[in-house]
Amino acid sequence: MNIILKVSGKFFDEENVNNLLILKESVKELINHGFRVGIVTGGGNVARRYIKMAREVGVGEAYLDLLGIWASRLNAYLVMFTLQDMAYMHVPQSLEEFIEAWSHGKVVVTGGFQPGQSTAAVAALVAEASSSKILINATNVDGVYERDPRIYADAKLLPRLTTSDLRKILEISQSVQAGTYELLDPLAIKIVERSKIKVIVMNYRRLNKIINIINGEEISSVIEPV
Amino acid sequence: MNIILKVSGKFFDEENVNNLLILKESVKELINHGFRVGIVTGGGNVARRYIKMAREVGVGEAYLDLLGIWASRLNAYLVMFTLQDMAYMHVPQSLEEFIEAWSHGKVVVTGGFQPGQSTAAVAALVAEASSSKILINATNVDGVYERDPRIYADAKLLPRLTTSDLRKILEISQSVQAGTYELLDPLAIKIVERSKIKVIVMNYRRLNKIINIINGEEISSVIEPV
Amino acid sequence: MNIILKVSGKFFDEENVNNLLILKESVKELINHGFRVGIVTGGGNVARRYIKMAREVGVGEAYLDLLGIWASRLNAYLVMFTLQDMAYMHVPQSLEEFIEAWSHGKVVVTGGFQPGQSTAAVAALVAEASSSKILINATNVDGVYERDPRIYADAKLLPRLTTSDLRKILEISQSVQAGTYELLDPLAIKIVERSKIKVIVMNYRRLNKIINIINGEEISSVIEPV
Amino acid sequence: MNIILKVSGKFFDEENVNNLLILKESVKELINHGFRVGIVTGGGNVARRYIKMAREVGVGEAYLDLLGIWASRLNAYLVMFTLQDMAYMHVPQSLEEFIEAWSHGKVVVTGGFQPGQSTAAVAALVAEASSSKILINATNVDGVYERDPRIYADAKLLPRLTTSDLRKILEISQSVQAGTYELLDPLAIKIVERSKIKVIVMNYRRLNKIINIINGEEISSVIEPV
Amino acid sequence: MNIILKVSGKFFDEENVNNLLILKESVKELINHGFRVGIVTGGGNVARRYIKMAREVGVGEAYLDLLGIWASRLNAYLVMFTLQDMAYMHVPQSLEEFIEAWSHGKVVVTGGFQPGQSTAAVAALVAEASSSKILINATNVDGVYERDPRIYADAKLLPRLTTSDLRKILEISQSVQAGTYELLDPLAIKIVERSKIKVIVMNYRRLNKIINIINGEEISSVIEPV
Amino acid sequence: MNIILKVSGKFFDEENVNNLLILKESVKELINHGFRVGIVTGGGNVARRYIKMAREVGVGEAYLDLLGIWASRLNAYLVMFTLQDMAYMHVPQSLEEFIEAWSHGKVVVTGGFQPGQSTAAVAALVAEASSSKILINATNVDGVYERDPRIYADAKLLPRLTTSDLRKILEISQSVQAGTYELLDPLAIKIVERSKIKVIVMNYRRLNKIINIINGEEISSVIEPV
Ligand SMILES: Nc1ncnc2c1ncn2[C@@H]1O[C@H](COP(=O)(O)OP(=O)(O)OP(=O)(O)O)[C@@H](O)[C@H]1O
Ligand SMILES: Nc1ncnc2c1ncn2[C@@H]1O[C@H](COP(=O)(O)OP(=O)(O)OP(=O)(O)O)[C@@H](O)[C@H]1O
Ligand SMILES: Nc1ncnc2c1ncn2[C@@H]1O[C@H](COP(=O)(O)OP(=O)(O)OP(=O)(O)O)[C@@H](O)[C@H]1O
Ligand SMILES: Nc1ncnc2c1ncn2[C@@H]1O[C@H](COP(=O)(O)OP(=O)(O)OP(=O)(O)O)[C@@H](O)[C@H]1O
Ligand SMILES: Nc1ncnc2c1ncn2[C@@H]1O[C@H](COP(=O)(O)OP(=O)(O)OP(=O)(O)O)[C@@H](O)[C@H]1O
Ligand SMILES: [Co+2]
Ligand SMILES: [Co+2]
Ligand SMILES: [Co+2]
Ligand SMILES: [Co+2]
Ligand SMILES: [Co+2]
Ligand SMILES: [Co+2]
Ligand SMILES: [Mg+2]
Ligand SMILES: [Mg+2]
Repeated sequence: MNIILKVSGKFFDEENVNNLLILKESVKELINHGFRVGIVTGGGNVARRYIKMAREVGVGEAYLDLLGIWASRLNAYLVMFTLQDMAYMHVPQSLEEFIEAWSHGKVVVTGGFQPGQSTAAVAALVAEASSSKILINATNVDGVYERDPRIYADAKLLPRLTTSDLRKILEISQSVQAGTYELLDPLAIKIVERSKIKVIVMNYRRLNKIINIINGEEISSVIEPV
Repeated sequence: MNIILKVSGKFFDEENVNNLLILKESVKELINHGFRVGIVTGGGNVARRYIKMAREVGVGEAYLDLLGIWASRLNAYLVMFTLQDMAYMHVPQSLEEFIEAWSHGKVVVTGGFQPGQSTAAVAALVAEASSSKILINATNVDGVYERDPRIYADAKLLPRLTTSDLRKILEISQSVQAGTYELLDPLAIKIVERSKIKVIVMNYRRLNKIINIINGEEISSVIEPV
Repeated sequence: MNIILKVSGKFFDEENVNNLLILKESVKELINHGFRVGIVTGGGNVARRYIKMAREVGVGEAYLDLLGIWASRLNAYLVMFTLQDMAYMHVPQSLEEFIEAWSHGKVVVTGGFQPGQSTAAVAALVAEASSSKILINATNVDGVYERDPRIYADAKLLPRLTTSDLRKILEISQSVQAGTYELLDPLAIKIVERSKIKVIVMNYRRLNKIINIINGEEISSVIEPV
Repeated sequence: MNIILKVSGKFFDEENVNNLLILKESVKELINHGFRVGIVTGGGNVARRYIKMAREVGVGEAYLDLLGIWASRLNAYLVMFTLQDMAYMHVPQSLEEFIEAWSHGKVVVTGGFQPGQSTAAVAALVAEASSSKILINATNVDGVYERDPRIYADAKLLPRLTTSDLRKILEISQSVQAGTYELLDPLAIKIVERSKIKVIVMNYRRLNKIINIINGEEISSVIEPV
Repeated sequence: MNIILKVSGKFFDEENVNNLLILKESVKELINHGFRVGIVTGGGNVARRYIKMAREVGVGEAYLDLLGIWASRLNAYLVMFTLQDMAYMHVPQSLEEFIEAWSHGKVVVTGGFQPGQSTAAVAALVAEASSSKILINATNVDGVYERDPRIYADAKLLPRLTTSDLRKILEISQSVQAGTYELLDPLAIKIVERSKIKVIVMNYRRLNKIINIINGEEISSVIEPV
Repeated sequence: MNIILKVSGKFFDEENVNNLLILKESVKELINHGFRVGIVTGGGNVARRYIKMAREVGVGEAYLDLLGIWASRLNAYLVMFTLQDMAYMHVPQSLEEFIEAWSHGKVVVTGGFQPGQSTAAVAALVAEASSSKILINATNVDGVYERDPRIYADAKLLPRLTTSDLRKILEISQSVQAGTYELLDPLAIKIVERSKIKVIVMNYRRLNKIINIINGEEISSVIEPV
């Protein structure tokens, strides 16, 4: 049984050592429960700051995305070094490299792959290529809400929804910042749909309860591909 | 002045030596007119046949796409070897490899990059990374039509349109085969929009008139990014 | 116990799904009987068609061979993706890359390596480097005949012969098309001789009886190195 | 005439767009004056923060250094993308990769290479391999002082000194934090001595006067190898 | 339990087949006693001869060191091919490549990494990155002596010493040939100190007693990091 | 006009600095006369000694050849470093790597490629891939003789011969040491024949007269492909 864990860039922005220790424990837990684990890390603040600097000196879009990708890879190195012997010691830079790394039977950690797509799309591609049936998206909110919870404090959490529900919600909740996708971008949704991958959105502060979350016994949102 | 030329997989299906010779001449023409040229090749029938075989033995979606990518790379090798000294002798396998290859000042030829995206998306990414302001899509029809011209013989060619026009047309004309994008997929459109790249759709039988087409003096469709 | 299986390009020309399924089963069989398996794929029709096109536009010999090599690699990807978890997920492009891939303890699939040599030579090199004592050549005839069986319908199958017998037979049967070696080229023969590798030529339609063939209980030709 | 410019990690900590623009101009200036330029970037605060996090979760010394190296590479990407067409588009990860990249005749930008050595040592190695006779160390102070100027506000700047003077100064001025070398570490000094490379320490705020500094007409310290 | 074995270049100068056979046996012994083994090979006479030739035609210091590194890699290939299936079949060319190779669970053999450092420094870096607590330095003398035993036949062997003792001894015993470090160079000492790695210096003629030497039951010098 | 120069391993066995200086001058001469130059180096004594040691400890044929290849690469590094800025700074390890390196417009230096073939075959492959019409084989005798000149002091030099003459001579002159080809092996002859490459065999002591030799004004043997 294979599983992919996407860790939001916000996880690293907190510079919280406890976060890292819980992540390490949750990977051990998953392995003990018979899972093979792949991890995808977001870029977070370091990504945003480097992109901002570069944009101001006139660097083009493809290269701005690449700076974000390199920042996400820095986070991947941090996670990989934290996992040490559990991990295969190479951060793949494309899906083809991931597939080769995945052959080794250890945890593989990756950041971004390519301009024009989010690290959530990377996570979906990696889930598909590893025949994972579950993709866990660990972020700074408890799951998918009807509306962006950072803006609408009273937004309601959706424990279960479909990818087509999600499409509608993201259209509304993110309409203000056109083009900046959060949670899942269109490529990510297309991939999880075509390969029937269940997505669980959860709070990374609950990573210590990851088995419960997979079993549906803890707060989270489960997105069924349709 | 940099320019990207996307050659449809259908070009190679014809196994027409003349096609290759005209392509070579058109590249020389472009270079003589001061362009640096990048080329992206589609997969065509070889791609479709290998995907079909693999699907029937139960190979997963990511790997089906990779077979199509390797077929498109075979076409890239054919073009690269035909161009010989004009080309940098490496077919890049990701945008990062393309960027390094592009540093060499010669023609770079590439096939597909990643599952989940078309070679038209590759062409858009490559155009963006090379600061090309024009992306030429050479295919087996004369340009963009109101409706798919293979199905509706009377469909009207659109000499000028915007990317947002194109989005609507593709939704209608391709609705039957949901998920299979032709001409440009959503990622390709997103990229040409964000980096203001003009797309020209033309018939590859007119590659000998490529300069006229760039100058707007020959049958084709010009798609303005908006 | 290590074993190399060379699959003729003709196997892929048939675009026969059953072929692929039987190949997969035969690899499982071999593994169950304690073999570690390496596979080398020929180029077939796709190779010939691309070489023909390229030759007509004036591409040089080294590059024609490379097109054939890339076609054989496309076949290698098809086989590797069909085997999925049984295979190490990288198609080596040289003997040195093969040796590294072989370290991983899984099936390794490779196409051609270098201009100037056949994929049978690749198979011999790969057999030698993996200390395999048997090289199986699965093709579209039942074994080695006194004369080319496609031309002389009454040619007699040779159940046992030596490499020096083979040299003579190939000299006669292939004299018309000088330089085009079938079955084994001189490099392949040199390698199997110097490393004492037994070659079994068999029909790929009998891959489901591969263990019997290894045990000498089925139609095939066994070539002893001398 | 080849020259290497080492940019302190502190340059990037300021997140100052003007810094980047002046750096870009100074590279153009150097090229216009007939120099071929190599650039080495330090790691700065991002390096220190990732190392701190990783140390607290028990990551070993080699891997802490690697995190610092990856942070310095992120800075290298920022500089390389800012220089765009002036640069060869690959950040080398070892001296051997640098040497290959340097063959291309463009600016090469690199971060760290290996645990156990500073980016100043990288700069010295890169200067030696490129036959540069000058290595410029652009940092946040005006040059080498008798004592650490951040601690002793009245420390005197040394306009000229030898590497053996520097050894003594660094022993004293940095004795408190044994093992953490600033400006130049022992490997850097050994390399510039054995290959007779002159080191100029200058303030990166004066990069717009880089030609004057090379000509000895501006505030800086010149360190002669002995 | 991981362990690194550094084999002096002098070992290969003897062109003694017995040396190689005993080395192979000692690796088996270590594995049987539960160790995972890494090996670093020196350059020896081949290195010195190539460096001498190159120096006389005016090749620079960085490239002289690289010739020595390539000679040491030739020795690494000899050892790796001798170990055959026990080894991972790739000679890493940098610490990052070593780390990836080490993930494979087999013996990894490496020569030099970078100009400006000895293969003893490589051994220390590799010991640190593999969390080895013991680094064995197998050379042509019985251990560390008060003075260079090749010059002073009556020099006394030191069964136990600290890295700070060693620093003083090397300063004296090697003062004549300033800059040419034997046994351990400053980087090697720095690394073993910071990561608390015990170094055992022994004669490679005693490799057949390697377990006794690790247990302190045979002639050798044990250097404690302080 | 492209040209390939194969330098016998014996050239390096002499450890003669003058040899290297004359080689460097001859490359400059060729460049000044409008040639682009590729160089292939033999393995010589170092190859033979490492192969001998390895054979005695039971290393297999493929790996013995690889040791010879690595020795020839060591010679390639020596030549490449001697040529410095004239050369592209990478020693290719396969024909595909050579082709990419050759795109850079500089001298490319290579050693062996693959077990089972001589460095003369490498030189022929490299000549073909670079569209060279001349391949110069610089060795320790003055050209091709009727019989091996080391054995028969009175053997007569053949100023002109064809590849089919050469085949016969090599069969006779080398019959005693079956399987060990000198000058050209069968693959080398096949390649120069199919691509119509003229081979000139000359003494490397005359490299200072290389232009005269190309013009047929100096002692050498010219082998016409037929
Ligand atoms: N309907 C919604 N439900 C839940 N979260 C939402 C919704 N709409 C927007 N969001 C926002 O999505 C964010 C989580 O997205 P994600 O973890 O992908 O972060 P990110 O900023 O894209 O990080 P990175 O790409 O670096 O990993 C939340 O912080 C939340 O504010
Ligand atoms: N509105 C339209 N206008 C023009 N062509 C259309 C339209 N709708 C569908 N098509 C089809 O798009 C095809 C061209 O697409 P394209 O060249 O990208 O082919 P493809 O099959 O995607 O090949 P590849 O991906 O291998 O390059 C035409 O053959 C045409 O039939
Ligand atoms: N004698 C001295 N003269 C000048 N600077 C000194 C001296 N002693 C210590 N320093 C310190 O050295 C610092 C510059 O070192 P450097 O630019 O190498 O920074 P760094 O921290 O090593 O950055 P990085 O490694 O990320 O590039 C100055 O900020 C200064 O305070
Ligand atoms: N105090 C000392 N105690 C022991 N050996 C010493 C001492 N001082 C100098 N040496 C010399 O160090 C040598 C061993 O060093 P080492 O094994 O590193 O050899 P090397 O020539 O550096 O080989 P390589 O770098 O190729 O591995 C011995 O031959 C010895 O003569
Ligand atoms: N008929 C012949 N004419 C000339 N040389 C011959 C002939 N037969 C054998 N030889 C031998 O070929 C040798 C030259 O071959 P070559 O330069 O290829 O050497 P090599 O040993 O193969 O070296 P390497 O493979 O390391 O480059 C000469 O030393 C010569 O003795
Ligand atoms: Co590539
Ligand atoms: Co591996
Ligand atoms: Co690199
Ligand atoms: Co490597
Ligand atoms: Co290479
Ligand atoms: Co290049
Ligand atoms: Mg996101
Ligand atoms: Mg040493």
